[in-house]
Amino acid sequence: MVPGGHTILGMNTPSDTDDIFWMRRALALAQTVMCTTAPNPRVGCVIVRDGRVLGEGATQPPGGPHAEVCALRDVQARGESAAGATLYVTLEPCSHFGRTPPCVDAVLAARPARVVVAMGDPNPLVNGQGLARLRAAGIAVTTGVCREEALAVNAGFISRMSRGLPWVWMKMAASLDGRSALHNGMSQWITGPEARADGHRWRARSCVVLTGMGTVLKDDPQLNVRGVDTPRQPRKAVVDGRFEIPEQARLFDGAQVIVFTAREDAAKAARLADRNARVVCLPGAEPGKVDLAAMMRWMAQEQFNEVHVEAGAGLSGALVAAGCVDELLLYLAPVLLGDAAGMVRLPMLEHLDAARRYEFIETGRVGADLCVRARVAGTWRELMQRVELPALS
Amino acid sequence: MVPGGHTILGMNTPSDTDDIFWMRRALALAQTVMCTTAPNPRVGCVIVRDGRVLGEGATQPPGGPHAEVCALRDVQARGESAAGATLYVTLEPCSHFGRTPPCVDAVLAARPARVVVAMGDPNPLVNGQGLARLRAAGIAVTTGVCREEALAVNAGFISRMSRGLPWVWMKMAASLDGRSALHNGMSQWITGPEARADGHRWRARSCVVLTGMGTVLKDDPQLNVRGVDTPRQPRKAVVDGRFEIPEQARLFDGAQVIVFTAREDAAKAARLADRNARVVCLPGAEPGKVDLAAMMRWMAQEQFNEVHVEAGAGLSGALVAAGCVDELLLYLAPVLLGDAAGMVRLPMLEHLDAARRYEFIETGRVGADLCVRARVAGTWRELMQRVELPALS
Repeated sequence: MVPGGHTILGMNTPSDTDDIFWMRRALALAQTVMCTTAPNPRVGCVIVRDGRVLGEGATQPPGGPHAEVCALRDVQARGESAAGATLYVTLEPCSHFGRTPPCVDAVLAARPARVVVAMGDPNPLVNGQGLARLRAAGIAVTTGVCREEALAVNAGFISRMSRGLPWVWMKMAASLDGRSALHNGMSQWITGPEARADGHRWRARSCVVLTGMGTVLKDDPQLNVRGVDTPRQPRKAVVDGRFEIPEQARLFDGAQVIVFTAREDAAKAARLADRNARVVCLPGAEPGKVDLAAMMRWMAQEQFNEVHVEAGAGLSGALVAAGCVDELLLYLAPVLLGDAAGMVRLPMLEHLDAARRYEFIETGRVGADLCVRARVAGTWRELMQRVELPALS
Repeated sequence: MVPGGHTILGMNTPSDTDDIFWMRRALALAQTVMCTTAPNPRVGCVIVRDGRVLGEGATQPPGGPHAEVCALRDVQARGESAAGATLYVTLEPCSHFGRTPPCVDAVLAARPARVVVAMGDPNPLVNGQGLARLRAAGIAVTTGVCREEALAVNAGFISRMSRGLPWVWMKMAASLDGRSALHNGMSQWITGPEARADGHRWRARSCVVLTGMGTVLKDDPQLNVRGVDTPRQPRKAVVDGRFEIPEQARLFDGAQVIVFTAREDAAKAARLADRNARVVCLPGAEPGKVDLAAMMRWMAQEQFNEVHVEAGAGLSGALVAAGCVDELLLYLAPVLLGDAAGMVRLPMLEHLDAARRYEFIETGRVGADLCVRARVAGTWRELMQRVELPALS
């Protein structure tokens, strides 16, 4: 394979197949730390010689060692040496001092013959500099192996670094004809327990679960992760333009809650602060409405990589209309409900061409239901470009 | 495998695997005649000895030979003999004189050592009698190999034979949030050209394409198969309770059209007869409405195996509510449309448990869109039982 080149299925030479095999292992390691590395990316690393794993690791919680250092320590613990080996890592090694020293230094010290990287790190403090140092030291560098799979693991981190926005997915549950509740408001449960559990797995990987006031008033949700194992709870957030949230809402359970409003009320904000809620006032152009785009930028500044939206038709539609939704996570139940509540409230369209087009990513059965994922194609392609690395030899 | 027993994946002995392999080939042959055998079933037959095909065939258009006879003639044409061979056929061989002599006689004359059958024929003139004659002649008979796949090829024929109803699927195209048209009525085209072509392939395999007056007035459809190869056009039918169909509608193009009404108008019926339209008056309980269940029974009596429904929210919803729809064929475009026209108009539900549940069969990408198929689980299981054959040795 040309270094830095795309790997196209069916065109792999044997050594490409090896690279893909080991990079997939590194990605699987990254997936073991989905809920613990934020705001850092989830990274996996495998060190291999002659088809044998010498050591492997994944990024530890903030302040702890990154994947490369974990893998190098594992090599040492096994009484092996990484000298002359190949190091597979799902993200370009960092080259700057953050909470930990640069991983590139540790890699250089271990003297591997070759480093294979899935994608570049658009963090301006890294952005190709790590690889340049490896190459300068005579280490062969291959980039772009499993790039798209690697991006999927860290779309949030990459989105934040490259465009100052989190990666936002919107979870919705509906009937096959797109109805999320009966005319009498009954919505629990259109989809089955497996779909609900799957939805909680997505909550668990996110940095923050976002809902709207309609849902708070109607369902009084706890907005936490339940029924699936998670090492930590994501933050909670509510869009509440008129700052009407009941102070006894169940979501104020001691965990940190962010309330986005368009109206100041210092006394109420102070009372909520006692309940671990942070009130952020971001008024939009329309009175009583939060500036949703500003809210997303604020979340990226707060180092939130991934936002899980689970809201009613009002906020869901407003987020779609404002271009704030990158991905749809849709659970469809095999049932038709007819004239009942819709999934999203959107401005009326006069022409089909005016509707935002998504692209299907995957579909699969979850219990009796169907899970359908789709994303905004242009945004994804933009991120794919941002993690491309120059094909230097 | 126990003769007549289920074949469960992962529990196959080597000979089961062979049986499945050859039966799949017979099913593929049946699929080559999807559009030409009606009202007869689509049947494929392969005759094999020592892993070598001696001959094969599929049922010819009505009046022509059935699959078994085609395959036996193929054996002869190749200068082979079926004596001692294994004959795989997707449906129990017929044992009665219809337009052609009984296939069982031809099979007996060929003296195969073994006959493997995917499913029984619930036609009361067959229904196990063919197999009993084979067994009486000392031929080993295995049944139930690929039964569910075989039923899928002939669900319409089996439905008509076993419950006096056609197999009815309803094709719908919608956005991800279940909208089939914009508020201004614009609906062409929510889904892409690949989905439309796929819809025409389903039209092509059906016996009749059914729509409602709303669609005739709004779109003036031709209601024929276009853009895909088909050896014959299915019939066309319109539900027109008040018998208001414009006599110049495009669907009256010389092909036979059936107009279901709830109102007599002999003069109009006579004029339409000149245009090759047959008017069938089946008034329902509500004035101006066709008795939809009676319409389906009428179609089965007319030997229509499969009905392709492609209608607006009104007729689609009425058919669902009347329990006339066995399968949903849904094309979903990766777009959200918000407050626009729904897919089906249904009576308001007070509780989710009251909604009819379907079961997902398959999903797949068709161009940029998603094709989702679901069916009424109970009906399917009922048909599966009707094609089960006794496990005699």
